[in-house]
Amino acid sequence: MRRRHLVALLALTGALLSLPALAAEQGKPTPTAKELLARSKPGEWRMPDPKNLLLMQLPQGRVVIELAPDFTPLHAANIRSLVRGHYFDGLAIIRVQDNFVTQWGDPNDDESGDKSKIRALGKASKTLPPEYTRPIDAKLPWTPLPDGDVYAPEVGFTEGFPAARDPASGQEWLTHCYGAVGVARDVDPQTGSGSSLYAVIGQAPRRLDRNLAIAGRVLEGMPLLSGLPRGAEPMGFYTKPSQRIAIASVRLVADMPAKERPAIEVLRTDSATFAALVDAKRNGRSAFYAEPPGKVDVCSIDVPVRESKSAAPAR
Amino acid sequence: MRRRHLVALLALTGALLSLPALAAEQGKPTPTAKELLARSKPGEWRMPDPKNLLLMQLPQGRVVIELAPDFTPLHAANIRSLVRGHYFDGLAIIRVQDNFVTQWGDPNDDESGDKSKIRALGKASKTLPPEYTRPIDAKLPWTPLPDGDVYAPEVGFTEGFPAARDPASGQEWLTHCYGAVGVARDVDPQTGSGSSLYAVIGQAPRRLDRNLAIAGRVLEGMPLLSGLPRGAEPMGFYTKPSQRIAIASVRLVADMPAKERPAIEVLRTDSATFAALVDAKRNGRSAFYAEPPGKVDVCSIDVPVRESKSAAPAR
Repeated sequence: MRRRHLVALLALTGALLSLPALAAEQGKPTPTAKELLARSKPGEWRMPDPKNLLLMQLPQGRVVIELAPDFTPLHAANIRSLVRGHYFDGLAIIRVQDNFVTQWGDPNDDESGDKSKIRALGKASKTLPPEYTRPIDAKLPWTPLPDGDVYAPEVGFTEGFPAARDPASGQEWLTHCYGAVGVARDVDPQTGSGSSLYAVIGQAPRRLDRNLAIAGRVLEGMPLLSGLPRGAEPMGFYTKPSQRIAIASVRLVADMPAKERPAIEVLRTDSATFAALVDAKRNGRSAFYAEPPGKVDVCSIDVPVRESKSAAPAR
Repeated sequence: MRRRHLVALLALTGALLSLPALAAEQGKPTPTAKELLARSKPGEWRMPDPKNLLLMQLPQGRVVIELAPDFTPLHAANIRSLVRGHYFDGLAIIRVQDNFVTQWGDPNDDESGDKSKIRALGKASKTLPPEYTRPIDAKLPWTPLPDGDVYAPEVGFTEGFPAARDPASGQEWLTHCYGAVGVARDVDPQTGSGSSLYAVIGQAPRRLDRNLAIAGRVLEGMPLLSGLPRGAEPMGFYTKPSQRIAIASVRLVADMPAKERPAIEVLRTDSATFAALVDAKRNGRSAFYAEPPGKVDVCSIDVPVRESKSAAPAR
């Protein structure tokens, strides 16, 4: 909402930040996210395991998804099976519902589709146990957030994923924040397989938490999923087949030649720099944002992703 | 995330909802939003005052915005002045930043623009007092939400707008939920005029609350603002002028011939049906959503808008 020339000015001189009387009255500006990231140490970044990374090739570019096998191991395994069988190649984005989700899969596995043309799942299972929640695992890293949550007793981050915990039930689960990749299903909770997936593209639909399995998170390419025309049919399905977006391929990065692998790193959510970024979201002051919120919602924190400077990941 | 054939089945027969053993075990399904709206009474709907309604014509269709003069009266008056001077006609959407905002205004009022071509504001003011918050007005309707909020001491709805209150400071303000229309500005809080506006298109950026003025809310046409390609420049500005989306016109509905006015009604947020919808969001059970969240966030509630069955609004 700043106009553009403001941003240019700020980029030219950090000194400007301390000039306005208003900001000076309210205390010194705090470091920006960019400044905090510039100070981060190499060990605070992790290279995602290539067997948990999917690369989906769309006409406009690539989408990189990290699977979450610690929360949905059966779905991760099934999706790997589907991908290795080239299941998604030639399928499509079939649905974009505003302020909700973008969904992809087999257009024929649908009321209006030709059932005789439904693609076989190969070695993958057609159904799986739900995997909506799991027992809290004290061995997984857990970075709690201090400001509470409308929906869950506790929220925080684990291994780069926003998540929630309920000490009373002893369960934890991934939360439906922007970019979460979930498993479409029919009414029966056993009907999800990973053959149709959705990404959250609007206000976090937290009512889906504990009702649907989250299989992963988009690390790169969200604009390619969110910046699409919305479908005009109920639930955002496209009216005409020609409106769908074709999926050229989905590959498991572990199966790709080293040179073709996306070389990206994710900031560790149990790192000091991530804690500083969260604090900046809560209490950051700048000349522009004079009134810090003092709080932050679990779905308002982006986990930074960057191009890796080192070699592509080994398998 | 249901597949499409599920939805078709549900539409065919409500009886299906009571069949699955799982749903039966967990209690009867609760009424759907559609069912609740079908039972609403005519008096629970209001026709927005046409002097608070803007109609923005884009190539793909119309966007209808309701101004919020009880919260930002000076901005409402200034925007009416701009619109009546045809200020926005021929300007453009200049910026779409993923998971944040779509912004429109004068492309030349920008670092890269031709300053000599900046459009004059006519009778409108170039600067305005901030209007970020206002003293709590007990005369305004207030429908509080029961589940708390990460950012504000109290949240609820007033006159169709999501809002927050702080009894300690005695202030209230509109919240940056999906579809909120805010006033772009430079660093100085006095620099907002309404000549450049933004709409929230992602996870509610609640840190903007009390730092920027909310001038209104999109009642119709959000998909036209949210389903746009994201700009590749910093902050989502478009790289080339040809990527911008032209605004054919913005009109005040009060100035339009009666037959051309959008005939839309908004559910009153102090109505029994709205309360029932909120409760359904919190505690609704269906065969699909077996685990109700029991809570709801202020930015996860859509205020229903429908085509009016009666005549177009009088001035």
